[in-house]
Amino acid sequence: MASLRVPEVVPSPLEDAEQLHKAFEGWGTNEDLIISILSHRNSHQRKLIRQAYAETYGEDLLKSLDKELSSDFERLSQRERSKVCPSLSLGGTRAVLLWTLDPAERDALLAYESTRKFTSNLWVLVEIACTRSTHDLFEVRKAYHARYKRSIEEDIAYHATGDYRMLLLPLVSSLRYEGDEVNNTLAKTEAKILRDKITDKAYKDDEFIRIISTRSKAQLNATLNHYNNSFGNAINKDLNADPKDEYLKLLRDVIKCLTVPEKYYEKVLRQAINKVGTDEWALTRVITTRAEIDLNRIKEEYHRRNSIPLDCAIAKDASGDYEKILIELTGHGSA
Amino acid sequence: MASLRVPEVVPSPLEDAEQLHKAFEGWGTNEDLIISILSHRNSHQRKLIRQAYAETYGEDLLKSLDKELSSDFERLSQRERSKVCPSLSLGGTRAVLLWTLDPAERDALLAYESTRKFTSNLWVLVEIACTRSTHDLFEVRKAYHARYKRSIEEDIAYHATGDYRMLLLPLVSSLRYEGDEVNNTLAKTEAKILRDKITDKAYKDDEFIRIISTRSKAQLNATLNHYNNSFGNAINKDLNADPKDEYLKLLRDVIKCLTVPEKYYEKVLRQAINKVGTDEWALTRVITTRAEIDLNRIKEEYHRRNSIPLDCAIAKDASGDYEKILIELTGHGSA
Repeated sequence: MASLRVPEVVPSPLEDAEQLHKAFEGWGTNEDLIISILSHRNSHQRKLIRQAYAETYGEDLLKSLDKELSSDFERLSQRERSKVCPSLSLGGTRAVLLWTLDPAERDALLAYESTRKFTSNLWVLVEIACTRSTHDLFEVRKAYHARYKRSIEEDIAYHATGDYRMLLLPLVSSLRYEGDEVNNTLAKTEAKILRDKITDKAYKDDEFIRIISTRSKAQLNATLNHYNNSFGNAINKDLNADPKDEYLKLLRDVIKCLTVPEKYYEKVLRQAINKVGTDEWALTRVITTRAEIDLNRIKEEYHRRNSIPLDCAIAKDASGDYEKILIELTGHGSA
Repeated sequence: MASLRVPEVVPSPLEDAEQLHKAFEGWGTNEDLIISILSHRNSHQRKLIRQAYAETYGEDLLKSLDKELSSDFERLSQRERSKVCPSLSLGGTRAVLLWTLDPAERDALLAYESTRKFTSNLWVLVEIACTRSTHDLFEVRKAYHARYKRSIEEDIAYHATGDYRMLLLPLVSSLRYEGDEVNNTLAKTEAKILRDKITDKAYKDDEFIRIISTRSKAQLNATLNHYNNSFGNAINKDLNADPKDEYLKLLRDVIKCLTVPEKYYEKVLRQAINKVGTDEWALTRVITTRAEIDLNRIKEEYHRRNSIPLDCAIAKDASGDYEKILIELTGHGSA
């Protein structure tokens, strides 16, 4: 379900590294070449290119970028940024950088940025905690250790407070079991617990959070099906008592990320693209983090919900090299 | 600091497997032979022996035991147990079994037993969460998935309640950073937070739990040193306001496990051995889980605190093959 397309015959990592080196050299960086190479290599191939580049030219392809990314990419002045890749736009540069990073490093960076911009970016943490596989989430946590010399939960716990902390910490720290086994008796019992808590408006109750944050996705899905069957509504409808309540909104997104991530991402894209001025931060994040995972599925949802293919919507909104990298990663037309 | 002694020349895994097979055969199982082999092999060697045994005899050395262990070893009737290893005592059998298991599997089993005997065995979960390395704790969580088809935090969240859940869940789920870096400004700030919470008797405050459960051991140690320097008492002294409060006792043990595990374990051993009838469950657990880690350091503490070497104390209390396996793992005399 990935949208990423890798050519049937892929040049060797060394050949790619040489092409990139050429593209970076001198005035008039060849951004088309950079994008056309990197946006059609999977994470393993990109890793090999970075290795070949480092061995051949004695520096990490992303070294200087990396260093700046790890402090806070968005704070970089235009001048600093232009040292790196003078002719790429800010949007294009960020997209290329995020894409080129190893997925676990990328998530670690996004999480790090998010903990520093509480609370506007809690959603990124929810995405990382709830849509990544157990193994991938663990890799993100290791990458966070390596990059920031502390743990992701340490930073969340430090920067978040109250209800958000109580919800986010277990979500990020959980090592969810990924088997398909479902205990139906348990699912019924826990559907009832969820219902009781919602009836009491006890959305922050630790039993509620326990069920959402520790059960396997298969088990949780069974529980939410029982909920729907027994109580007549999908849980997210019942969690919409007060549409302005930010905590409830976050809770609904947690449940969407855990059960129907493509619908969650479709909405993020819709809101990013429809926003006056486009939310490039969100758009770039979704495309770069999902291109290798389930972007085709998200594209289907997007097309159905907005009556326009995602690539056309992006082309209307973005331009130049920023448009180019997004479209290359998204692919043209329907999934 | 491990007490485990492996001979300079170790037989091949196949030779060991053959010897064990012989020892198991017929009437009059040769428990001395079993103990003399297994108690002098490290976890990697024991793993290879299990592999060789399985390849040669078509069954896991611990297969039938394992199956029973994974339900609840202690519930086995004497009759069932005697099928497995007729001439080993219950204490001896459990010790051999626990020792022979892979360390991560062993911890998963101990944790599983503990979640089923709330609240008398919370300490085992604290030990596993706070004395294992970050990597080892992660391995335990993976072993728990594999063995019980769910996550350890799922079971803790399900079986524990209230304050205990709020403390244990983040401890078990944390992936603590293990570097030596210390931020002294942060240490001072957080020492003050801990002090304020203690002054207000807010021992269950989530800021208190956040600091204890997420900071690296190096950082936490610096914080507790600042606490001691600034407020005149070690934190555990201030956490002793009500000696009968079980939650405070657990909190003190959490801090001991994180900062001076050898002192924590010395006390567990002292209480297990001094108890009328000996707490075999605790004694076996400490010896089998620490022999390959830091039992020599624990022995030093034990000798200093009790004026008798640990092996002599064990010899006074235990007997037969149970004594034999414990002494072989502990080693004779001082560390």
